[in-house]
Order: sequence, then structure tokens, then C-alpha cells
Amino acid sequence: MRVVLFTDFGSADIYVGQVKAVLAAEAPGVSVLDLLNDAPDYDVEAAAHLLAALAPEFPAGSVFLAVVDPGVGTARDAIVVEADGRRFVGPDNGLLSVLWQRAREKRCHAIRWRPQRLSASFHGRDLFAPVATRLAAGALPDGWLATKPAPDVLFDPGPLWRVIYVDHYGNCATGIPAAGLERAARLAVAGREIGWARVFGEALRAEPFWYENSSGLVEIAIARESAARALGIGVGTPISRAAPGSPCSR
Amino acid sequence: MRVVLFTDFGSADIYVGQVKAVLAAEAPGVSVLDLLNDAPDYDVEAAAHLLAALAPEFPAGSVFLAVVDPGVGTARDAIVVEADGRRFVGPDNGLLSVLWQRAREKRCHAIRWRPQRLSASFHGRDLFAPVATRLAAGALPDGWLATKPAPDVLFDPGPLWRVIYVDHYGNCATGIPAAGLERAARLAVAGREIGWARVFGEALRAEPFWYENSSGLVEIAIARESAARALGIGVGTPISRAAPGSPCSR
Amino acid sequence: MRVVLFTDFGSADIYVGQVKAVLAAEAPGVSVLDLLNDAPDYDVEAAAHLLAALAPEFPAGSVFLAVVDPGVGTARDAIVVEADGRRFVGPDNGLLSVLWQRAREKRCHAIRWRPQRLSASFHGRDLFAPVATRLAAGALPDGWLATKPAPDVLFDPGPLWRVIYVDHYGNCATGIPAAGLERAARLAVAGREIGWARVFGEALRAEPFWYENSSGLVEIAIARESAARALGIGVGTPISRAAPGSPCSR
Repeated sequence: MRVVLFTDFGSADIYVGQVKAVLAAEAPGVSVLDLLNDAPDYDVEAAAHLLAALAPEFPAGSVFLAVVDPGVGTARDAIVVEADGRRFVGPDNGLLSVLWQRAREKRCHAIRWRPQRLSASFHGRDLFAPVATRLAAGALPDGWLATKPAPDVLFDPGPLWRVIYVDHYGNCATGIPAAGLERAARLAVAGREIGWARVFGEALRAEPFWYENSSGLVEIAIARESAARALGIGVGTPISRAAPGSPCSR
Repeated sequence: MRVVLFTDFGSADIYVGQVKAVLAAEAPGVSVLDLLNDAPDYDVEAAAHLLAALAPEFPAGSVFLAVVDPGVGTARDAIVVEADGRRFVGPDNGLLSVLWQRAREKRCHAIRWRPQRLSASFHGRDLFAPVATRLAAGALPDGWLATKPAPDVLFDPGPLWRVIYVDHYGNCATGIPAAGLERAARLAVAGREIGWARVFGEALRAEPFWYENSSGLVEIAIARESAARALGIGVGTPISRAAPGSPCSR
Repeated sequence: MRVVLFTDFGSADIYVGQVKAVLAAEAPGVSVLDLLNDAPDYDVEAAAHLLAALAPEFPAGSVFLAVVDPGVGTARDAIVVEADGRRFVGPDNGLLSVLWQRAREKRCHAIRWRPQRLSASFHGRDLFAPVATRLAAGALPDGWLATKPAPDVLFDPGPLWRVIYVDHYGNCATGIPAAGLERAARLAVAGREIGWARVFGEALRAEPFWYENSSGLVEIAIARESAARALGIGVGTPISRAAPGSPCSR
């Protein structure tokens, strides 16, 4: 079985390697896949929506180590969520609550086990990784988990009308599932009104557009350019439907 | 067998992980190696020369998933190129054409198979990854490929007299094979004239120089400094031989 | 056995993939773990202290490929250090000298073997990787190493009173082991005086603090903010104990 990493530890930093060392030591047969280690820092709600959009691509049985945890070391709980056949290990700060609320089959557990050494700032390595790797190996000792009715912190399951992720091209994914938006819809972003295009190669040069990205979310982009830079937008920027005849239409 | 990634998907973004999930699902025994996931965005010709310089390091049998594809979702073909024992899966937009033209033994195929779900913007995940992993596993179904005489788009195979890659030190690799340049050659870059040094430790402090990099290309550098920043150059900057007695010589 | 990478090759660049290709070719059963490929460029002493702090997390038998080597291609030696059960392969430029001096059980060896092709600028790929992978596989040929009493270059083993590493959050790790600093200690950094907090969630908003990081080092941080940016500090910034009643105290 596989452990999938979804964190804000930084793909260039020293933290992912330390987590992988723990994963490998505890269960050498478990493989590890980096889905994202540059989730938006501190923005747990954005990360919760992004994770909920990405997780369904992964096969049943996958174990996600999901950590965006600015409150690490404080009183928030540590949980395991089972949702439609996938398992998620992480902090009870809302990060797992969007996928929890969208799931048909689900169970929640509190993590009762505590390691001998628990650093105040790195529960990803000391607490969540040992649980995730044992789950993936099918070797979780009795008593490590206790049933819990639901996560303590529940975010609104969406749609979330703001930018939740910016990639290195400058494309800006939102928390809006594209299936709920008709192609004729025009969006208001940063004082601009934006129409739909099917794909980059069909969009006009220098013209921002929205499209359904490969994870099913509405995404704001400009062909061969950074929409983030050109529009001055980023994680957190609000998006709305453009009002017909609104001052920002062109 | 191994799949080698050469893409502009961004090593810090969400795309590489999704590709790896497909590679693993289709053929669990296939291993994956990240050669480069930060190829220069949109600059297919630069990437084509960089890939041609790097690929010969890899053993025969390697399968490259090579995607720099700003025209994804438009009419360009999808191909598999066999070149001197290595296989390359990617778009027919010139990316594979430099190594194609330099190869002694070569064959080209169009990819005829199409997946049930093909996103408009992420053929790396939906189309190229399933082909690459089956190729690496030796399990490509009949009918997925059709012979094609050559790639449709053929770039000039070089040398390419411009910067094609800038690393995090600020060293600037060019598309010029160093084997074709005598050590006494002086190069003109950004209004400066630049001589040769064997290695960083033998170059003068603060003085730009060219050297043969570890992939056999001419590279512009400054010891313990960013040549890109100091000279104001980047991917695309033209390089030429300095004319004897030219105004830029020093 | 495992090879652990600790380098300044750049996690987004073309170098790590080339090293991994060599590691895999020489000994396919050896696995590779990226601990850090963005060690501070050129700052061998900072890297030496960081490596000494991180290495003890790894199990005995681990082989580290440790390369921060601005003098590559010049006369410095190439060595293997055994220290408390772990092995380290890299340049003899001080990088391995902090952990060497702190180790209880230790041996040093010069690497006598030279590859057929040795590029002037990439000994990580051509010299150190083949040695590391054979060490990890337990298949190092006779004569590749020769005993050496100690590394030639020995840095002061510390504590090092300056910033040695900045992560993507902007947290600034120092070369000061936290075990040697009482919680009441106040530190002077960039003209500011800074007290201790246990963890981010307990620190005051916008207030810099020091804490014991997850590797046991004193680290300067600000909750949900970049201490590096807010204080204008970075790798190399000196740290000291704040003098009681000093002008910078508040």
C-alpha cells in the first residue's frame, strides 16, 4: 500500500525527507508518493478544498498523510478519517473536513497513541507518519485509534468562491467545482470580467479566461502567461459571478 | 524498467504526483526517476536541446515521459520516438525532434490509443503516462501505436546559440555542444566578451567565463555568483562568437 | 540499504536526477531518500552544522551522499567518514568535519578510486555517487578506499552562533544546540532582543521568538509570518546572547 503526502512542508526543505525516513523505518514495504508538499502555507481552508478535489483520483486503500497545521503543538486533536475507501491522517483543524462532508461512506477516529518523543513543532514526523505507515502496512496496533463521531472542526464543504491554489505557471485554481458552472458563465476577478475557454491553445493571447482544470475545478488562466501576476491575484482572492451589465464588464 | 520524467510540470506543483499515481497504478513494478520537472515553461525548442543533451546518460531501454506542451488540447499529434535504444513519449511539437535528428537508429510512432477520460489540459497524466508505463513494463497493447515516418515538427538540430537552461546557482547552459568549440574561443554575451575556464575553482572572482558543463554543453558562469543575475541573462539570451577586435572585447 | 542525499544541487534542477540514475544503475536494490538538495549554496560551514544536526535521526548503516562543494575540480580530497554507525561520502572541505568531531566511534578514508570519466564540475555524479551506492550495497571493491587519520579540513564543531538554514516559511535555524541554552535566555538578532516560546501557537502575533526546533537547534521564528523577511536576516546572520540592559532590549 501507498502513503500519499499532502503537506505544506515545502518540497525544497528538510522536512519531507525526515517524514520519509520515518515512513521507511516503520514499514519498509510501504511506498510513498509526493502529491503536494507546497500546499498554501497557513491556509487550512484552501488546502481542505484542494485535497478534496485531488483525492478522488487515488485508488481505494490509499493512505494520505495530510498536514497543513499552523496550530501544531496546541490543543487541536489528531485524527484518522476514512472516506469512500481512502484513509487520511492529519490534524483536526478542518483540513479533512471538506472531503469528510462530501463522502458517502465515512468513519472518523481520534489518534490516542502518542510517541515517546513528540516535538512541539513537527507532528508530521513524530505522530502522523508512524500512524500513516502502520495503516498502510495494515499493522496498526490495537488501541492506537478511538472512534469519534466526526471531526471537531468542520468547514463549509463549498463551493469556495476564492483562489485556493496557484501553480508555477501562475494559473489560479478556485474552490468552485466546474461541473456546477455553465460554460456561458462570466466571472468577476480583481475588477475584471472573464469568460470561458476550453483550453489554453484556444484562448486569446493576453486575455484571462476560466476553464475546467484537470481536477474538475474552475481555474483562472492566461495562455503562456502568469494570470496571478497579470491580474495581481493569489490564494485568497475572491471570485464571483459577474453581474450582467456590471461596471466591470467589457 | 524505468520511466524518466522530463517536463515543465513544476517540481513543487500538484502535477508530478498525479502522473506518478497513474504510472504506479498501471504497472506497479515500474520505477520512476525525476530528471527535470522544471524545464523552461513554454520554450519547447530550448527543452528539446536540453533533453537531447541529457538523454544519452541514461541506459538503453529507458522510457522518457517528455512533456513541454503549451499547445496541449489542440491538434498536435502524440508520438513515441525510439532513438538509439531509448524510448520517448510526448507531444509532436518539436520536443523530441532534436534527439530524433541526432540519433543513428530511430523509429517514430503515432499514439492511436485515447483514454476514456482525456482532460483538455493534462495529457501528461491522461494520455502520455499510461503509454509510458506500459512501454516500460513491456505490455503495450496491439493497436496503441501506428508507424509514422518522422515527427511532424522538426527543429534545427543545432547547435543552438542561445541560453537554454538556468540552474538555481544562476549558471546558464547553452545549446552549443562544447566539443565543437576550441578552448581559445571567446564568446559574446549581453555585450560582454567571455573566455574559457576549466572549472569554477580556477576562474577569477566576479569574472564571467564559459566552460564545458557536465552534460557536454557550453555554459556561462561566475564562481560563487549568479551569472544570470550579474549579466542580466536568461533562457533565450543569444550567444555568439566574439569578433576579434570587436567593441565589446576587453 | 539506503543512500540519503544532502546536497546543494537544487531540488528543482537537473542534477539530482542524474545522481539518482547513477545510484540506480550501479546497485538497483539500493533506495534513495532526499533529505535536502537545497543546502545553502557555497556555505560549507553552515551545511556542516546542519548535516550534523540532522544525521542522528537516521538509522545506523545509512549512507549519506553529502555534497556542498564550491571547490569541485580543485585539489581538495574526496573522503568517506564513518561516524557512530553511519557512513558519509563527500568532499574533504569541512562538510563532514562537524559530525566527525562530535562522533564517539569514527574512521576516515580517502577515496582512491577515480572513474574513467570525471567531469570537472560534477563529482557528485561521477565520483561520489558510484562510491556511495557500492557502500550501501556492501560491494565496495578492494582498493577504492585508503585509511586516513582524519579529514584535512576541520571546522570548529560549534555551537555556531549564526543562522545556518532558512526554510520556506522563513524560519531561521541556527547552529546553536538548544540543549545548551536555558529557556530564560534572550537572544540578540539584527538589533532585536528575542525571548523563548514553546511553539508557534503560543507565540504572540508578529513577535519574533526563539524555540527548540525539531532537530534540537535554536530557531528564530514568527507565528504565521516569515522571520527572515520581517527581521531582514538570512544564512550567515550572527546571533548572540542579549546583554542584560543592552540598548536593543525592549
